[in-house]
Amino acid sequence: MSKVLVFGHQNPDTDAITSAISFAYLQKELGINAEAVALGSVNEETAYALEYFNTEAPRIIETVANETNQVMLVDHNEAQQSVSDIKEVDILAVVDHHRIANFETANPLYYRAEPVGCTNTIILKLFKENGIAIPKQIAGLMLSAIISDSLLFKSPTCTEEDIKAAKELAMIAEVDLEVYGLAMLKAGTNLADKTAVELINSDAKSFPMGDQNIRIGQVNTVDVMDVLSRQVEVEAAMKKEMADNNYDLFILVITDILASDSVVLVVGDSYNKVEEAFNVKLDNHTAILKGVVSRKKQVVPPLTTVFN
Amino acid sequence: MSKVLVFGHQNPDTDAITSAISFAYLQKELGINAEAVALGSVNEETAYALEYFNTEAPRIIETVANETNQVMLVDHNEAQQSVSDIKEVDILAVVDHHRIANFETANPLYYRAEPVGCTNTIILKLFKENGIAIPKQIAGLMLSAIISDSLLFKSPTCTEEDIKAAKELAMIAEVDLEVYGLAMLKAGTNLADKTAVELINSDAKSFPMGDQNIRIGQVNTVDVMDVLSRQVEVEAAMKKEMADNNYDLFILVITDILASDSVVLVVGDSYNKVEEAFNVKLDNHTAILKGVVSRKKQVVPPLTTVFN
Repeated sequence: MSKVLVFGHQNPDTDAITSAISFAYLQKELGINAEAVALGSVNEETAYALEYFNTEAPRIIETVANETNQVMLVDHNEAQQSVSDIKEVDILAVVDHHRIANFETANPLYYRAEPVGCTNTIILKLFKENGIAIPKQIAGLMLSAIISDSLLFKSPTCTEEDIKAAKELAMIAEVDLEVYGLAMLKAGTNLADKTAVELINSDAKSFPMGDQNIRIGQVNTVDVMDVLSRQVEVEAAMKKEMADNNYDLFILVITDILASDSVVLVVGDSYNKVEEAFNVKLDNHTAILKGVVSRKKQVVPPLTTVFN
Repeated sequence: MSKVLVFGHQNPDTDAITSAISFAYLQKELGINAEAVALGSVNEETAYALEYFNTEAPRIIETVANETNQVMLVDHNEAQQSVSDIKEVDILAVVDHHRIANFETANPLYYRAEPVGCTNTIILKLFKENGIAIPKQIAGLMLSAIISDSLLFKSPTCTEEDIKAAKELAMIAEVDLEVYGLAMLKAGTNLADKTAVELINSDAKSFPMGDQNIRIGQVNTVDVMDVLSRQVEVEAAMKKEMADNNYDLFILVITDILASDSVVLVVGDSYNKVEEAFNVKLDNHTAILKGVVSRKKQVVPPLTTVFN
């Protein structure tokens, strides 16, 4: 079998990077010539986890068809979040925990999605089902992803299975879950060094809804004012991204990881739809969304409803 | 939790009917208020299996949103093969072994697809993963589906996992796999009582390919001439179905289950594409496809390639 590339979504977060590493490791143990790669550079939170568990960041790729015709996707399925030439290769497997959309194959494949908080929670099951032991470093990276996706179990996307998986992985990784988790999350909230463009794109995804092309970015912080103090500069960057990429609406979700609330900053003509979706009034293009920390579970579904 | 309807594809075959029964049983054991239903009446092969294992055929439904907002799909995912109002309800789970296309959800879900020969092979795994025992009757129905989808292990879609699963289920069901299997398959080949319309639609599915809407029906037989002797009448029925439903091309795959070959009967303007896909010349709208028994693995992929 030729080489199989394994990767997560564009603008990779900790789950996208580490699920590629853990799933590629599992595939290698099962005899597949798999390599974990990434569709972008790692963010500061992921860099902290990789350094802590002494692992190199995956090689960054722009296209796949130039080096293989077989890929496996982790932590995403939608074509617009994947590698640009995804339609030119065969998708052998997907492991994911998101909605399914804009995904099509010519052939049957292995697809494993579960409505849990983190791809690595599913991958832990796959290790067990296949009777493969998880090395300490890989367990630490898988744990990091669960902490990241669940904001240390505070996100409504977090399930009992995620918490159980995290505790089990913390044992293998030999770390104190709470201490390590908070240190890792804080490492990801250093926004001061980022330009406005870096900030809005660091964890941004595109979602077609109705006839609109909607971009939703998210940043985690321990102080929302850190971001809002740069609102003029940030809005200008959002408008430029919209013009350059034909987005109809750009929503930046600024999430306070300690208070577990978010402020949205909205640019685009249909911002009244945003007001409708969240039942709020935008003031100077912003609104507080109480208790909202999950793009997937608390931001995308109400927007999908009002746009469709 | 309100009622959850579980069903397979339109024009249900044995796997579509029995995987709804087996998966609904599993869900009920897990505490879900699940009911197996069907999107059409059972064929003669399935009727044989249901009678043999003393099970009622599932209730037939036309729509789902009038009675629930939650469904689980088995043995299919593509919207055009599903219930007509599928977009109005939440899909909680899918268990399938086909390509993924025309499938979209607003929310994360449970999706379990594997490239094996039969949905019930996957469902057997799910019983084991959840530690639920399989009753004798359910095991017999699951076995029937594997025999049906694999034509007693002769189809190229059949994997080692399917064979292993069938042997295990035959033990639980207490039947001789070969004797029961051949009797069941033969029960499904009685085409003489069928009108031409019933014959072409008994196991037909629609596949959008490129800008074409392609209908592919399949019938199993122990004597291909049984069908070809009615070619004029059958072609007239195919043309009427095309006109009524805006199909661009109708391909009837007549499969000899003993010889493991098929004859295709083709109606539609782009039948030269069919010749290209299978590297054959059509003679009086028909051609022999040596060794072809699987629509999914040997008919749909080459057609998809030439139309896209």
